[in-house]
Amino acid sequence: MTDKTSNAMWGGRFAAGPDAIMEAINASISYDRRLAPQDIAGSRAHAAMLAETGIVERSDVEAIREGLLTVLSEIEAGEFAFSAALEDIHMNVEARLKALIGDAAGRLHTARSRNDQVATDFRLWTRDQCDAAIAGLDALIAALLDQAEQGADWVMPGFTHLQTAQPVTWGHHMMAYVEMFARDRGRLVDARRRMNESPLGAAALAGTGFPIDREMTARALGFDRPMANSLDAVSDRDFALEFLAAASICAMHLSRLAEELVIWSSAQFRFVSLSDRFSTGSSIMPQKKNPDAAELIRAKIGRIVGANVALLTVMKGLPLAYSKDMQEDKEQVFDAADTLMLALAAMTGMIGDMSANRAALAKAAGSGFSTATDLADWLVREAGLPFRDAHHATGALVARAEAKGCDLPDLSLEEMQAVNAAITQDVFSVLGVENSVRSRTSHGGTAPEQVRRQIARWREMQKGRA
Amino acid sequence: MTDKTSNAMWGGRFAAGPDAIMEAINASISYDRRLAPQDIAGSRAHAAMLAETGIVERSDVEAIREGLLTVLSEIEAGEFAFSAALEDIHMNVEARLKALIGDAAGRLHTARSRNDQVATDFRLWTRDQCDAAIAGLDALIAALLDQAEQGADWVMPGFTHLQTAQPVTWGHHMMAYVEMFARDRGRLVDARRRMNESPLGAAALAGTGFPIDREMTARALGFDRPMANSLDAVSDRDFALEFLAAASICAMHLSRLAEELVIWSSAQFRFVSLSDRFSTGSSIMPQKKNPDAAELIRAKIGRIVGANVALLTVMKGLPLAYSKDMQEDKEQVFDAADTLMLALAAMTGMIGDMSANRAALAKAAGSGFSTATDLADWLVREAGLPFRDAHHATGALVARAEAKGCDLPDLSLEEMQAVNAAITQDVFSVLGVENSVRSRTSHGGTAPEQVRRQIARWREMQKGRA
Amino acid sequence: MTDKTSNAMWGGRFAAGPDAIMEAINASISYDRRLAPQDIAGSRAHAAMLAETGIVERSDVEAIREGLLTVLSEIEAGEFAFSAALEDIHMNVEARLKALIGDAAGRLHTARSRNDQVATDFRLWTRDQCDAAIAGLDALIAALLDQAEQGADWVMPGFTHLQTAQPVTWGHHMMAYVEMFARDRGRLVDARRRMNESPLGAAALAGTGFPIDREMTARALGFDRPMANSLDAVSDRDFALEFLAAASICAMHLSRLAEELVIWSSAQFRFVSLSDRFSTGSSIMPQKKNPDAAELIRAKIGRIVGANVALLTVMKGLPLAYSKDMQEDKEQVFDAADTLMLALAAMTGMIGDMSANRAALAKAAGSGFSTATDLADWLVREAGLPFRDAHHATGALVARAEAKGCDLPDLSLEEMQAVNAAITQDVFSVLGVENSVRSRTSHGGTAPEQVRRQIARWREMQKGRA
Amino acid sequence: MTDKTSNAMWGGRFAAGPDAIMEAINASISYDRRLAPQDIAGSRAHAAMLAETGIVERSDVEAIREGLLTVLSEIEAGEFAFSAALEDIHMNVEARLKALIGDAAGRLHTARSRNDQVATDFRLWTRDQCDAAIAGLDALIAALLDQAEQGADWVMPGFTHLQTAQPVTWGHHMMAYVEMFARDRGRLVDARRRMNESPLGAAALAGTGFPIDREMTARALGFDRPMANSLDAVSDRDFALEFLAAASICAMHLSRLAEELVIWSSAQFRFVSLSDRFSTGSSIMPQKKNPDAAELIRAKIGRIVGANVALLTVMKGLPLAYSKDMQEDKEQVFDAADTLMLALAAMTGMIGDMSANRAALAKAAGSGFSTATDLADWLVREAGLPFRDAHHATGALVARAEAKGCDLPDLSLEEMQAVNAAITQDVFSVLGVENSVRSRTSHGGTAPEQVRRQIARWREMQKGRA
Repeated sequence: MTDKTSNAMWGGRFAAGPDAIMEAINASISYDRRLAPQDIAGSRAHAAMLAETGIVERSDVEAIREGLLTVLSEIEAGEFAFSAALEDIHMNVEARLKALIGDAAGRLHTARSRNDQVATDFRLWTRDQCDAAIAGLDALIAALLDQAEQGADWVMPGFTHLQTAQPVTWGHHMMAYVEMFARDRGRLVDARRRMNESPLGAAALAGTGFPIDREMTARALGFDRPMANSLDAVSDRDFALEFLAAASICAMHLSRLAEELVIWSSAQFRFVSLSDRFSTGSSIMPQKKNPDAAELIRAKIGRIVGANVALLTVMKGLPLAYSKDMQEDKEQVFDAADTLMLALAAMTGMIGDMSANRAALAKAAGSGFSTATDLADWLVREAGLPFRDAHHATGALVARAEAKGCDLPDLSLEEMQAVNAAITQDVFSVLGVENSVRSRTSHGGTAPEQVRRQIARWREMQKGRA
Repeated sequence: MTDKTSNAMWGGRFAAGPDAIMEAINASISYDRRLAPQDIAGSRAHAAMLAETGIVERSDVEAIREGLLTVLSEIEAGEFAFSAALEDIHMNVEARLKALIGDAAGRLHTARSRNDQVATDFRLWTRDQCDAAIAGLDALIAALLDQAEQGADWVMPGFTHLQTAQPVTWGHHMMAYVEMFARDRGRLVDARRRMNESPLGAAALAGTGFPIDREMTARALGFDRPMANSLDAVSDRDFALEFLAAASICAMHLSRLAEELVIWSSAQFRFVSLSDRFSTGSSIMPQKKNPDAAELIRAKIGRIVGANVALLTVMKGLPLAYSKDMQEDKEQVFDAADTLMLALAAMTGMIGDMSANRAALAKAAGSGFSTATDLADWLVREAGLPFRDAHHATGALVARAEAKGCDLPDLSLEEMQAVNAAITQDVFSVLGVENSVRSRTSHGGTAPEQVRRQIARWREMQKGRA
Repeated sequence: MTDKTSNAMWGGRFAAGPDAIMEAINASISYDRRLAPQDIAGSRAHAAMLAETGIVERSDVEAIREGLLTVLSEIEAGEFAFSAALEDIHMNVEARLKALIGDAAGRLHTARSRNDQVATDFRLWTRDQCDAAIAGLDALIAALLDQAEQGADWVMPGFTHLQTAQPVTWGHHMMAYVEMFARDRGRLVDARRRMNESPLGAAALAGTGFPIDREMTARALGFDRPMANSLDAVSDRDFALEFLAAASICAMHLSRLAEELVIWSSAQFRFVSLSDRFSTGSSIMPQKKNPDAAELIRAKIGRIVGANVALLTVMKGLPLAYSKDMQEDKEQVFDAADTLMLALAAMTGMIGDMSANRAALAKAAGSGFSTATDLADWLVREAGLPFRDAHHATGALVARAEAKGCDLPDLSLEEMQAVNAAITQDVFSVLGVENSVRSRTSHGGTAPEQVRRQIARWREMQKGRA
Repeated sequence: MTDKTSNAMWGGRFAAGPDAIMEAINASISYDRRLAPQDIAGSRAHAAMLAETGIVERSDVEAIREGLLTVLSEIEAGEFAFSAALEDIHMNVEARLKALIGDAAGRLHTARSRNDQVATDFRLWTRDQCDAAIAGLDALIAALLDQAEQGADWVMPGFTHLQTAQPVTWGHHMMAYVEMFARDRGRLVDARRRMNESPLGAAALAGTGFPIDREMTARALGFDRPMANSLDAVSDRDFALEFLAAASICAMHLSRLAEELVIWSSAQFRFVSLSDRFSTGSSIMPQKKNPDAAELIRAKIGRIVGANVALLTVMKGLPLAYSKDMQEDKEQVFDAADTLMLALAAMTGMIGDMSANRAALAKAAGSGFSTATDLADWLVREAGLPFRDAHHATGALVARAEAKGCDLPDLSLEEMQAVNAAITQDVFSVLGVENSVRSRTSHGGTAPEQVRRQIARWREMQKGRA
């Protein structure tokens, strides 16, 4: 911060000049350069409005808008020389604009301030991330629907406590994640809607006496409306926090699916085979396939929740309106957004490539008397036993099967009737894993017909969105 | 867990019996008893459906529904003997029901499981908390509107970096918080809508073969629809996490307002006087008034964010469907919800009671050449100077005033024209704090007319909701 | 807070009286009553010092010290009537003391304040928790040593990425956790040492003009010395935070071990069998054994890290010295400490009861060419091949074995020499799982002799501590 | 990952090749290149040991050690071409070494694995950060000691609840932070000691059959000893977590001091003047000096606690031994360490430059009857009143002074005696701010003599360390 241009910015009163430490802690250009497209779009909208309202001469505005496009191409072409002495993206762009078009550049900052400018830029950026995350979720949901469709009637164990509880279908399991990611999508849609108001025109904090048209700039930038309170407009970081909150819950869902993939890939489970693209091997142990991508996705919740905590902590107890603390907002959201997009893409790739091991799933589904509850339910439903009595009878039948070393459907009708006389041949219609899943036709249940109905519903919804 | 009844529950195979440690870590009745009203409402809806669909005899169902009402009255009257050996609220209620009505009680659990039962109970409870928080926010917004209305045109300093930047109005400052709390309200409304689906009927995890009617129970409990996937229905805790996320952001807003109240109550600021009801004094220092409630509210973000982190951490990496880890969900949400309601109530009380010190606010507003930007803006607007030049001239005028020991409006026209000849008598119309705030009429700006327009808009909205 | 006694405390200026909300947010007696023993010990030490230094008459001090013992017995006997109007444990005890011994009670508070009093109480309490956690860790380490000793030479798969990498021994795996929990112990020992300084005598914040003897009270309460700065003494909550930090890392270790127990208990792994005491079953599926305690322990990291985040958030940005925000410290530490002790006890019980399934471990250890790296190492060590070449040759041999459907030791010497002529009969000494683990004798390696050496070292250390 | 070299690493079985997503999520070279010096130091120590133990020919080892130095100079000179296809720093260095010295490079990886290699590198890096943070804390403590010395007897208000409670000295207030930062130092010293064990030689996870000498490599790298369990050695990230925990508490202390600087810099307080180097101004409002550095430091706790939460979350529930999740450890610690060093440096600079406004401090110290407790204490000490009675009398005297519009020392002896006849002329020796602070001579109290004693003690300790 020793060059004259930037010293001039502070009115020449910082004789000493902030030294390297201050520059290191204060300058944001190393990361906020990512906001360049948003900054330039915001400035162009502001300039157009200044012309339309007669605040600035149209010829100056045309020079400004043209010059900003030049700056943008320079940045996109990688030819822009960013300067830490100029602190942030706003000052960097403005200084270059002045070099390009001269004094007219000085009129751009009329009726605005860095406070509403950065709030606008960052909000536009975060809004784009909502859109990207929504698209990423749609792709992941599509991959899950494909898996669900293919294996709508493949049986597998339904676990509670990682213990086999009841058989379910592969499609049903995949569809559970569709529900989760669809809720994540809904949260992002809501967050996007809520954040879609324009801070531009709030100026430093109090609004302005210039006859600006905030509706016009809001519209130009795709906002639904201008924010209603200028103090709030420059102080608010809810939009970032709500994005981080939605991302945190989504990352949690990703961590659950990733955990399942890791467990399912173990030699002991072998429920799925991940593609080579998303795992790594060992040069000497050919059967080894490390589910690296799944593990990394499982871990990503750490940095996303960490970012969420970080920004909540930063904002805790800040008096109105703008405090410099708020500069800490961007890196957290940048990192969380990048992480979320990458994790969604990697998960989509993995799910797309993944092969379920249908035989292993079926074998596991049938073990452990997994249809015992079906038998109990049949006793209630068909033989009219009270729930707790039916459970008692089932326990006795399971014990008998266990003693014989066979499964429930392998018991004879006589053996069954010895435990409870009300049992008929019909009981075999619910025993066996295939029968079990087919019978669970309640709304949202695991029966293939139910699963297919849900897939169809989601396909329809996805179509409506595309 | 040594008594026979409960041992029987585990099918008699736990000869040893879980000891005190296991009971301590496993039993949830010490806290989930709060779910009793929801548990009983859910059971009554389920029972009615079992009758309607013919799954259970209507006479049994009538006994069940009647018996459950009896249990509820016993609990409400404080006459219910909760038993840790019976682990949780579901078992406690069911055991008592059996004692009251006999074997018919055993039919209640037909076509459901503790997994969908607890998911339903907790979702109903959390939904109630959304409603309570929305009501609490409405009350707080009303209190802020009252403050804003009273002081719509009182001037005060607008701060950035806790340094006076530009004058604003008290009403404007209050309305900034109205915006924040209204967004909190919006998040809770969205969370409520998203969580308002019924898990009931998902059974253990796979749905059921009984011909249940999930629409009917959903309707009876005020849900919009049944959840679409039974695995998801018993595994999902998004509703709790989304509530905690919304509560965290709201707690952050409360912490900011609380921080301002603490600072404003200091001897150095004296911007406000808190009521005796929400502060504590010193028996020997009469002027001392500790803003205890404000400090406590400021701190409450800690436990709410802590609860949010806790539940996200619990859910990280859990395979489907139900895992016992999820039992850790309730205490976090209970504590966060209680904390949020208390903090909202205390803040509403404080804001309602608080007296702004109009004179001190006005005096602070005028110090530090706080209308310098108004002067610069006038030079741009009326004298046609470029923004950066106008700032330069303003700096010179401020320096002159500082040297003379006076404020900007105290300079003579001649003195001003010596710095820039384009200055006219009209400049005085924007100098002075009152003029400054009156001039900032941009949408959402600090001008009293703008503030009053926003107050009216919110009053209208509040009315629409009541 | 409407009764006269308590109103009097505020010097009569709170005409209105804090209402129910204020009492709810302000009073701490509902939880800080747990500090009663510490509060009374602190007061008794303070009183003794007041006598010794001549600040208060010895006869008054004797009445005070005696009276405090009476109060303590009343509390221990459950006969004490706690009053929310009296806000906190300090006021409750003092009011009761006054009722018991009259005016002399008023002299107890000479030369101290609630600020140093609560800091002393809470520090004593937290110090006790360090001791309890250290004892809990010692018990857990002892249980792990027993497991390690029993299975010092049992082979099992060593996993990376949950894929079999190399065979290790059961004892070696158990000892890895001994190392972790021993580091946790070390952190608690350090935390205890650092917190063991007395705040008593700091008074409100500035120290006192009374000729107190802080060394004497420090000694009486088992502190190493008085704290060196009175402002710091009443503002510091590092001791609580350092305890929470150590507890968080310990909870992380517990979550890792718990996760392994859950996975190892699955039907697919069956590496261990948990006792009935720490799992729950199903009345109808006898083979099902839900690892409830392991799952709950796995989840407990949530609330401990949550408490850690909560208190760090509370303390963020608090100006010196005491702020009421700090009252939020206790519930977080209480809950985290209770949780840690319970989780340690439950884990100790589970590890003590757990049976490793030696046959299943051995079978899994041998699968997947898990000794391929032993072969590669032999080629480097004995045949002098560069590391990367040895890996290449090993890959070829594994491929050959895979094609033949056999394991590495099943290949003939000729088959091996066809891949690399330098291979001799000696190679069979490292192939096979037993040979593999026996060969890894480097310090800290998995060879049974190494494992036994480590067990002996730890046994010795445990003995030294007992 | 399309080039042959790297494909070869995976044994040629990844026909498809991981695509861009996988590279993006999997490769760590973009950040772990920071570990290059540690990686090369570790490899050189390992190589020397391989020669000493005869595992590798001395001539090969010499080539390796020399070649590694060449690689290091290339990296330091910025001439090294890092390759994402080679994933991480270890592979990048090894590939370059092979290009430099040929096949001998292949012998370096004998008897080690990437698992122990990365654990060693990262531990060495974190150990360096402990040293850097300790040095940073020493510098900050020195700056605080200078401030304390200069103003050992300057009076200022001691606050509770941000309300004036009792007068203290500037030196006393500064010394409170010395205590805090000294505890932070102690925690880092303990963390450094605990982490100072060598993972090298743990190999993949099970140790090795090569006759390595782990003591020798440990010594060469400055470790106190080798780690005692190879599974733990590759799974442990406690060292990173303990560093983050210590950094979190330190960041909390920094946030408190920063908050005070922000408040003290406000126009309403004006207790201190920050230097131009660490604040920013306004081109048109010359009196405005934004405490940017203080605000940014206040915010930094967010990202440090965020990193702490992130890594705890990552590690939650990871089974032994190495899982890829653990690759998420580095960026969190890198960022937290960089942040901590920067915040310490900026705070040291600010404290060094800061001017306390002695007059404003004194004026504020005397307001609000801040010596009322001194009067009460005098009544107890000298006139023998019970504590609560003394408070009553003091309240009456304060009320009298307030009515007269004067301060306590301005009351006449007669006026005082009218309230309590036991009052003598001696009372004036404790009234008045200067008298008050001088009288608080208890150990650690605010009296200048006490403050100077503490300064001397710390100066001595600092000297001992230099």
